[in-house]
Amino acid sequence: MTGLADIADVGRDPRRGGYSRHGFDRSELELRAWFTEEAQRRGLDVTVDRNGNLWAWWGTPGPDAVVTGSHLDSVPGGGAFDGPLGVVASLRAVDVLRAKGFVPRRPFAVVVFVEEEGGRFGVACLGSRLLTGAIAPEAAARLTDQDGVSFGEAALAAGVDPLRFGRDEEALRHIGVFVELHVEQGRGLTVPVGLASSILAHGRWRFTFSGEGNHAGATLMTDRRDPMVPASQVVLAARRAATDGARATVGRLVPNPGGTNVIPSSVDLWLDARAADDARTRAVVERISQAAKDAAEEEGCAVRITEESYGDTVHFSPSLRDEIAGVLGDVPVLPTGAGHDAGILAAHRPTAMLFVRNPTGVSHAPEEFASDEDCAAGVVALAATLERLAG
Amino acid sequence: MTGLADIADVGRDPRRGGYSRHGFDRSELELRAWFTEEAQRRGLDVTVDRNGNLWAWWGTPGPDAVVTGSHLDSVPGGGAFDGPLGVVASLRAVDVLRAKGFVPRRPFAVVVFVEEEGGRFGVACLGSRLLTGAIAPEAAARLTDQDGVSFGEAALAAGVDPLRFGRDEEALRHIGVFVELHVEQGRGLTVPVGLASSILAHGRWRFTFSGEGNHAGATLMTDRRDPMVPASQVVLAARRAATDGARATVGRLVPNPGGTNVIPSSVDLWLDARAADDARTRAVVERISQAAKDAAEEEGCAVRITEESYGDTVHFSPSLRDEIAGVLGDVPVLPTGAGHDAGILAAHRPTAMLFVRNPTGVSHAPEEFASDEDCAAGVVALAATLERLAG
Repeated sequence: MTGLADIADVGRDPRRGGYSRHGFDRSELELRAWFTEEAQRRGLDVTVDRNGNLWAWWGTPGPDAVVTGSHLDSVPGGGAFDGPLGVVASLRAVDVLRAKGFVPRRPFAVVVFVEEEGGRFGVACLGSRLLTGAIAPEAAARLTDQDGVSFGEAALAAGVDPLRFGRDEEALRHIGVFVELHVEQGRGLTVPVGLASSILAHGRWRFTFSGEGNHAGATLMTDRRDPMVPASQVVLAARRAATDGARATVGRLVPNPGGTNVIPSSVDLWLDARAADDARTRAVVERISQAAKDAAEEEGCAVRITEESYGDTVHFSPSLRDEIAGVLGDVPVLPTGAGHDAGILAAHRPTAMLFVRNPTGVSHAPEEFASDEDCAAGVVALAATLERLAG
Repeated sequence: MTGLADIADVGRDPRRGGYSRHGFDRSELELRAWFTEEAQRRGLDVTVDRNGNLWAWWGTPGPDAVVTGSHLDSVPGGGAFDGPLGVVASLRAVDVLRAKGFVPRRPFAVVVFVEEEGGRFGVACLGSRLLTGAIAPEAAARLTDQDGVSFGEAALAAGVDPLRFGRDEEALRHIGVFVELHVEQGRGLTVPVGLASSILAHGRWRFTFSGEGNHAGATLMTDRRDPMVPASQVVLAARRAATDGARATVGRLVPNPGGTNVIPSSVDLWLDARAADDARTRAVVERISQAAKDAAEEEGCAVRITEESYGDTVHFSPSLRDEIAGVLGDVPVLPTGAGHDAGILAAHRPTAMLFVRNPTGVSHAPEEFASDEDCAAGVVALAATLERLAG
């Protein structure tokens, strides 16, 4: 799709495949500059809020605005659509509305949230969490990437003062309603466009196993306290524990020091767990945590488990969804297992999501896809939605 | 110990603890410069061989020399003694012999082998393997570090032409006998100094599991082909398979792309396996490989297993050992599970190893240790050995 094609070369990851674009890294900054230019070319006024999110205003900024948008960052080695499709579709929806002579009767903005995936600093939806006060500003500023650069330092280097991080009452007042268009991330949508009903309860837990680093050749098997052993058992426990529609994943595991001929002294792994509601999610994590503790004890290792982020089930506004369904006609309504900035905002404002069909069913990977026709249908649906809400 | 204290600040790893000094990286280059200066200060002539190993000659270079030395690189987050102790002890043994007016009657050299640990390019004993022709020069030049830099490129940047890599007949002719002093790496030595009998057969195997990268939240458990699951089973299979004195370790495991909310598309892990002889080592690896194939098949994943390096059991020269034991008196003789450049050279020249006691029993980790008194006893023993061999 035009727009996505313009940024197709930014942030490619030759090692992993796909894209690695992370909050305030070189490629995300390039995409922010691209967005700013595209918005200004349309006569929109671009501002940066105190948490580093970008706002492009059609007309005068003000309270109770109709806001649409998404994010530009990706997971490591992610696809081209998750995030950027929503941003591009927002700009193109403005074009569609302009072309038909529409003038919004409410304030109207396109927003780009920073570090939605948490691919660099570990906490997802960082920009929207900060804006709504869902994360303490000091805690967010202290989050570090794998090179030890803090989110605060990265923000400062990008011209955003981390001392101003925090709940943004002005931005919250500005948002009257938020609509996010996003590529669908499973095999749940068989027509071009659908609407979201809810987001699974989900969170991230860090497990740190500590043992005794030693020589892989000189150390007898009986003398070992190898943290890789209980760490591996967590991966298998996650598979066993995620039943009845729950999901549990270990996608990131880092042995320290990570040498081939070295028994690690410690292993960090991150558990991503999700289920239909809080109780089920907590039960899955509890089963995995118990398995981790048992396996650590058996190996003579210690384990520390830290909740890095958590969000309860999100139910998007039924009345807003009904209003949009009235515009779009008979579109399917489906839940999603993926987290979104819209899910964070839903606790504060009427919020809705439009999904665009993904024929591969794959997301967070290079195979993620949406056809030009379906993307165009998404733009039409978003424009109609915004026209209704802002008209 | 003096010498080790001089380099105590080079290559510290603030993240992992200990030292990360790898072949031709900044810290190893700094140590090479330090060695060159120390050798030249003693009037030794320093040359670099075609594979990047450093030679410091006492007197005129020539065939049938008495050669001692070790390496300066470390594993990631390694200790201060593994490698540098042997280099420092060699220089100090020269000082001891000089102080007593000894003049070698045979050519005499101190050697520093490059990339002994394989901590950067994955193959251990790279300098001695190249020198003896145990690895093809093209294959060595193509090995890459985790940033994609090849060993050939790194060598070239350090002034060593990779087109000249390969079996070094001149260097082989020069080595009449090789003695390496090394910190002991287990709990096998209870007096200050001992002699090596043998090195376990050992090798490294890379397992690459390929599945389907996808979204950790949106993908049903039943739709997954997650390579972390069979990879974890390999860690546990290694623990089960290493019986009867064998050792099997997974110290390095890398999910790709490695995002918390991403089911990896592939996982690479490295198996380090060792046992008393070839047949037992092969049997351990075969058991683990079969478990890997079964686990991969069950998850709908593919697995590729590659032998990255292998060395059969090394028996150090019994006659050389007896000769040294005659000088040192009643010292213990013990086998080791650790690989060494001396093990590579043993297939070509009479070779011996002196061990210095390690009271922690820990190696390849910051806790690796040898007391000043034991290091000094090692220097005395090495000097006496070299005096006997070169006198």
